[in-house]
Amino acid sequence: MTKTFSLEDELAFARRLADAAWTAIRPHFRALDTVDNKMGAAQSAFDPVTAADTAAEEAMRALIEAERPDHGITGEEFPAKPSKNGFTWLLDPIDGTRAFVAGLPSWTTLIALCDASGTPIIGVIDQPVLDERYLGWPDGAALEQDGQQTPIRVSDCKDLREAVISTTDPFILTPAEEGAWTHLRATARIGRYGLDAYAYARLAAGTIDLVAESGLKAWDVAALIPVVRGAGGLATDWRGNPPKLGGQIVCCASQEILDQALLALRRSAES
Amino acid sequence: MTKTFSLEDELAFARRLADAAWTAIRPHFRALDTVDNKMGAAQSAFDPVTAADTAAEEAMRALIEAERPDHGITGEEFPAKPSKNGFTWLLDPIDGTRAFVAGLPSWTTLIALCDASGTPIIGVIDQPVLDERYLGWPDGAALEQDGQQTPIRVSDCKDLREAVISTTDPFILTPAEEGAWTHLRATARIGRYGLDAYAYARLAAGTIDLVAESGLKAWDVAALIPVVRGAGGLATDWRGNPPKLGGQIVCCASQEILDQALLALRRSAES
Repeated sequence: MTKTFSLEDELAFARRLADAAWTAIRPHFRALDTVDNKMGAAQSAFDPVTAADTAAEEAMRALIEAERPDHGITGEEFPAKPSKNGFTWLLDPIDGTRAFVAGLPSWTTLIALCDASGTPIIGVIDQPVLDERYLGWPDGAALEQDGQQTPIRVSDCKDLREAVISTTDPFILTPAEEGAWTHLRATARIGRYGLDAYAYARLAAGTIDLVAESGLKAWDVAALIPVVRGAGGLATDWRGNPPKLGGQIVCCASQEILDQALLALRRSAES
Repeated sequence: MTKTFSLEDELAFARRLADAAWTAIRPHFRALDTVDNKMGAAQSAFDPVTAADTAAEEAMRALIEAERPDHGITGEEFPAKPSKNGFTWLLDPIDGTRAFVAGLPSWTTLIALCDASGTPIIGVIDQPVLDERYLGWPDGAALEQDGQQTPIRVSDCKDLREAVISTTDPFILTPAEEGAWTHLRATARIGRYGLDAYAYARLAAGTIDLVAESGLKAWDVAALIPVVRGAGGLATDWRGNPPKLGGQIVCCASQEILDQALLALRRSAES
């Protein structure tokens, strides 16, 4: 990190980015006028992009370009802008577009700041309809509601059989991944679906104990890691190695749950 | 209905019941101390009951017994109380206990008033964390937020291929039901899981177009019907007949979607 870097300043800036995103998104939630299909009509998979998604990324990019001109930007909706000083913002204006289209307040805005080594050092998972903003940094995590921050902490669950676990959609897993998930699901106490990044927020806040997903992009993953780790949780790939910014990820409340989950996940891990 | 019945009075009373339930539930949400297993440890299915569930039903029952002593009560947590005047309240203090345990604000409090014929005439789907209270009566439905009521209306979707559809958990369906659901899911635009009664609320409010479920109890179903129908939606069993208070139910935004869905659902309909 450069001498001029201030964690506090960048956290405050990240919160302003989240505010800007919500200002752009708010008029569109539950009032969808256009839903485009990013994959094209010929594709069977449906990946909606809303006017909100584009407007929110534009708003965040404008702020970064005005106030952090040397920082890079990697976002879901526009081409990447290279970094001049090593720092890069990763932006996913609406993670959980299917939830958004269905009018469900479980979509989130994801914002991460990565350092020159590509390590995410600040993460924000923002759900403005719920007024829940989850913040993570190298040695802490907090839930901000109504302008007040409260430290958050993962649960003390150490047994997969007692765990509440989540994946976004069991039907988008590969057959091998689905086998691993089915094993976890049969072992755990409760399974929840369709939460996208909100599941990691609730893991950090102690009400979900494990989240396993695959097929993720860098902007899906980067914001989650500081929030989960800052709250005392673990984040690895499906082999138990440090997570890559994309692909398969598993986050857990404890090493014990991770060890139990890896018994199943490792067999379906990407090479 | 008796001469003394006033729809307006009973709607106001139903809203007070919802307030009483939330007062009892609030201290427990995201601060779970005990989660009992209703099915017993020997059962593989997990059906959590929280202190909140019991406290909320007790609070609602106390209000009904004090102010509507002739009305019957059927609730999830306690034995039924027979009606002396034909009217019966159906109560599910926390529908979506798995979501509640996972700290997700998609559980709801369900309150219905049935007349002497067993027809639900008032329905409330209350989600107090979101400050969303969905109300339905014989010729209308509204969303109440921050004390203000706004009329709600189902979407104008008429094609299952364009529809957002939902069921609570594809893994609790029977094999035949799962076949029907898989057919619907493959046809529809977006599928969402784990929403319990909140899915019907969003159907009534126009962001979900079809909900199909099975294995329901009377207190799961009764509140949904006035909300969905009051908002212009349809509610039937999986044969297209008037819904029973339990078992299989399908709710849709339009007759066209219902007709398309019944092609699949009818094959798996209970006799």
